[in-house]
Amino acid sequence: MILENALAGAAAVARAYGRTTPADRAAMLRAAADALDAAAAELVPLAMAESHLAEARLTGELARTTFQARLFADRLEQGMLHEVRVDHADPDWPMGARPDIRRTQVPIGPVLVFAASNFPFAFSVFGGDTVSALAAGCPVVVKAHPGHPELSRRTAAVVAPYLPDGVFALIEGEEAGRAAVQDPRVKAVGFTGSTRGGRALFDLAAARPEPIPFYGELGSTNPVVVTPAGWAARAEEIATGFAGSVTLGSGQFCTKPGIVLVPDAEAFLSAVPELTVGPMLNERIEDGFCAAAGEMAAAVTVARGEVGGGPVLFRSTAAEVLKQPELLELEVFGPAALVLEYADVPEALQVLDAVGGQLTGTVQGTDSDPDAPELVARLVEHAGRVLWNQWPTGVTVSDAQQHGGPYPATTAPTTTSVGTAAAARFLRPVAFQNVPEAALPAELREGAPGPRRVDGTTRP
Amino acid sequence: MILENALAGAAAVARAYGRTTPADRAAMLRAAADALDAAAAELVPLAMAESHLAEARLTGELARTTFQARLFADRLEQGMLHEVRVDHADPDWPMGARPDIRRTQVPIGPVLVFAASNFPFAFSVFGGDTVSALAAGCPVVVKAHPGHPELSRRTAAVVAPYLPDGVFALIEGEEAGRAAVQDPRVKAVGFTGSTRGGRALFDLAAARPEPIPFYGELGSTNPVVVTPAGWAARAEEIATGFAGSVTLGSGQFCTKPGIVLVPDAEAFLSAVPELTVGPMLNERIEDGFCAAAGEMAAAVTVARGEVGGGPVLFRSTAAEVLKQPELLELEVFGPAALVLEYADVPEALQVLDAVGGQLTGTVQGTDSDPDAPELVARLVEHAGRVLWNQWPTGVTVSDAQQHGGPYPATTAPTTTSVGTAAAARFLRPVAFQNVPEAALPAELREGAPGPRRVDGTTRP
Repeated sequence: MILENALAGAAAVARAYGRTTPADRAAMLRAAADALDAAAAELVPLAMAESHLAEARLTGELARTTFQARLFADRLEQGMLHEVRVDHADPDWPMGARPDIRRTQVPIGPVLVFAASNFPFAFSVFGGDTVSALAAGCPVVVKAHPGHPELSRRTAAVVAPYLPDGVFALIEGEEAGRAAVQDPRVKAVGFTGSTRGGRALFDLAAARPEPIPFYGELGSTNPVVVTPAGWAARAEEIATGFAGSVTLGSGQFCTKPGIVLVPDAEAFLSAVPELTVGPMLNERIEDGFCAAAGEMAAAVTVARGEVGGGPVLFRSTAAEVLKQPELLELEVFGPAALVLEYADVPEALQVLDAVGGQLTGTVQGTDSDPDAPELVARLVEHAGRVLWNQWPTGVTVSDAQQHGGPYPATTAPTTTSVGTAAAARFLRPVAFQNVPEAALPAELREGAPGPRRVDGTTRP
Repeated sequence: MILENALAGAAAVARAYGRTTPADRAAMLRAAADALDAAAAELVPLAMAESHLAEARLTGELARTTFQARLFADRLEQGMLHEVRVDHADPDWPMGARPDIRRTQVPIGPVLVFAASNFPFAFSVFGGDTVSALAAGCPVVVKAHPGHPELSRRTAAVVAPYLPDGVFALIEGEEAGRAAVQDPRVKAVGFTGSTRGGRALFDLAAARPEPIPFYGELGSTNPVVVTPAGWAARAEEIATGFAGSVTLGSGQFCTKPGIVLVPDAEAFLSAVPELTVGPMLNERIEDGFCAAAGEMAAAVTVARGEVGGGPVLFRSTAAEVLKQPELLELEVFGPAALVLEYADVPEALQVLDAVGGQLTGTVQGTDSDPDAPELVARLVEHAGRVLWNQWPTGVTVSDAQQHGGPYPATTAPTTTSVGTAAAARFLRPVAFQNVPEAALPAELREGAPGPRRVDGTTRP
C-alpha cells in the first residue's frame, strides 16, 4: 500500500478501533488466524521458495503464529489485558481523603511494525508484534521484510478482510519505513532485526518532535555456561544439545547460543557431533554471516569448520576474551559459536559480567550443582530469560514468557516482544477519578468481571 | 557528594542491594520515613525559607512523602511488585510442549533522579521517584534541585543512615547531572521539570551508546471542559472550584488547570471569585511565569489581573485558538489560565484533539449530562488521568493512580511517576525456564505467597 494511504487509514480508524470491545477484537484475531490456517497450502510453499526454510519448520511456525493470535484472543476474552486497579473513595486514606480512582489500559495509537526475515510467519506480517498491537486496540502498519515479499503480500491479503478498513496495512521499502517512523500519526514502533538497523530507526524515533516508544529486539550472543559438575555428569547430552541448538534454523535465531563457556574446550569440541545445516535465508544474511565470522576468525582460533559458509566453531579462553571484550558482543548471525575455556567459575562469572545485555543466558549443570545459584543469579543481571539444562532456541508463547533484555538485546528492557505481556507495549494506563458509571469503560464498572486489584487486594 | 563517588558507590552496591529481600527494603523505607517525620521540626522551616511555601502546605507535603514511602513498604511486604506469572510445563500446549517458565521483575540497576522545585519533599530528595526506585531494588543518585539546596542536603543526611552505603547519594549542579545521564553505570533516569530541560536530558539518554529509559514528567496544560448542563446547574461551585485549583500552591503544579473551555466566557469570568496567591518559589520560576504570560498576552486578551506577577486569566474563543494551536501547548507555569468560550460541544472536542499530551483532563458537568461520555472518552485519548466534577491539582498516592500521559506530558506514556505502579519503571522482567527451586528467587517457588497469574488464571 502507498505509505500515505496506510498512515491516513490507520489514523482515521484509530478512535473507532480503540473503542471496540475486547470480545470484538478477539473475534477478529480468531477469524484472521483461521483464515491463515486455511491458507497454509498456499502460504507454506511460498515461504519455502522465498526463505529456503524447510516445510516442516514453516508448517510449525505457521501453527505457532495462529496459536499466538488465539492466545491473545483468549486473554482478551478473560479481561486480562486491562490490568485493572480500583481504589474506592476513602476519607481516611492516611495522606488525606482519597477520591474514587480506577485505572485501566487504553491503546497507544497507530503502531508501526518492522517484520523480521528469519521468522517469515511468527515475527512477520501477522506475527507477535502485529497481534499484540491489534489485541491492544491499535491499528497496525507493517513494513514488509524484503526477504519474503510475495509471502508478505499474500499473508496481508489473507488477514485483511477480517480487520476493519484502515486497521491493518502493509508497506514496502526501506525509505517508506524510515518515513513512517518519523510520521506524527505513528505512536509506537515494534522492530526485530539487526543492531545496526534497529539502532538507526531507534534514533529516528527518539529525535521526533514527539518522541515515541521504540521496541527494538536487536542483537544477542546468548551465553551458555557448562559447569564443572554438569560437564562431569552430562558431557554427551550437553554436547549433543548444543549441536542441535547452534544449527537449528541454520543458526538464524536471535536466541542461538553464540558463546559457550566450558571447563575443558578440547574435550567439549571433541564431544560435539557433526554440525549440519540447511541453506541460509538469503544472500544478504549469508554475506553478513561470513563477514562477522571473518571478524571473529581474525581474533581467535577456528576450531571446527571454516569461514565462508557452513557451521563454524571458534575457540579461545575466558582469560583471552576478557582482554578483548568486544568479541563477546560480536553476534555472528548463523551457525557459529565461540567456545571459551574458563579456569574456574569466578572467571566464568567475569565473562558473564562482560557480555552486555542478552535475550537469554543458560546454565548446564546438575541437580545438586554447587555453582548453579550464583551462575543463575549473575545471568539474571544481564538477560531477559535464564534457562537451566535446556537450550535457548525455541521460545514458547505463554503468559510468563519474557523475550527481551538490556541493550543491545532490546531498546526497551522493561518489555517483552513474545508472550501475552507483549501487548503492554502498546497500552497506556489511564486513571479515572470520580467518573460516574455511565462514562466509565466497561471493565472499570462495579462488578465487572476479570482480575483486578481492589483497594490494595488482588481479586481473581 | 562528588559525582564519581556517587556513581562508583551505586555501581558497587547494585548487586547486593538488588538481592535484598522485599522485607529488607520495606524496613529501610519505613526507617527512613520515620526519621524524616521525626525531623519535621527542622526540615519544614528550612523548606519554608528556601521555597516560600507555607508551613501547613509543607507539613502536609512531608506527611504525603513519608506516607508514600510506607505505602511502597506495604506493597513490598505483600509481594505485589513482582507481578509473578507461572506457567507450569505442559506437554499439550498447542504450539508444542511448553517448558516450566516463571516470570518475575528484577531491578534495572542504578537510577538517577532529578528533583523538582515545586515539591521540595514529595518530588525531591526522598520523593516518589527515589522511593519507587529504592522499592524496586535500585541504588539511587539524586541530583538536587538548586531551588532548595540546604533542605536537599539535610533531607539526604536524615535518610542516608537507614540505607546501605552506596544505595543513596546526593549530587549537585547541572553539569554533574548531565554527566550522570551519560554515565554507563546509570541504567534509568527519573525527571520532573520543564519540557525544555527534560527534553535536553532525554536526548542525552537516547544518544548514549547504551540508551536507557528516561522517565521525564514535563509540561501539561490540563484542559477542563465545563459542559452546558454543568454550567447551568453548578455555576458557582465550578467557578469557585476553579479559582481554588488555579491558585493552589501559587499555580505551581504540573496539574494546574491551564485551559478552561466554557459555554459562556463572560459569565464564567464574572463568577470566578478574587484570586489570591502566596509568593512564588523563586525568582527563576517567577521570571519564567512572567515570560510565558507575556507570550500568551501577545496572542489573546488579558481578562483578569495583569502580566508581571500575580494571578492572571486570559480569554479567547475555541475558534480563535484552533487557528493558533501552539497556544494550547503553551504552559504558563504559575497562577494563570486561558479561558476559552466554545460555540458547541463538537467545537470543544476539536480543541481537546489539539491540546497535545496531558497529565490530566477534566469534565465539569451534571450527573445525567448528555455530553459526559464523549468528553470523557475524548480526554482519555490525550491524558493520563481523567476527572469528573473534581479538580486536577492534588494527586492522591494509591495503587490506581496514574500520573503521566502522551508527550509532552511525559517522555514515557506507558508509565506513571505517582502511585505504586511507579516502581515498574525501575523493574525489568526476567523469565526462568526449567530452573530448579534452589536457584529460583523466593517469589517464584511453588507455594510462595503473593498475587500471581498461574497457568492463565489470576490467584490472589
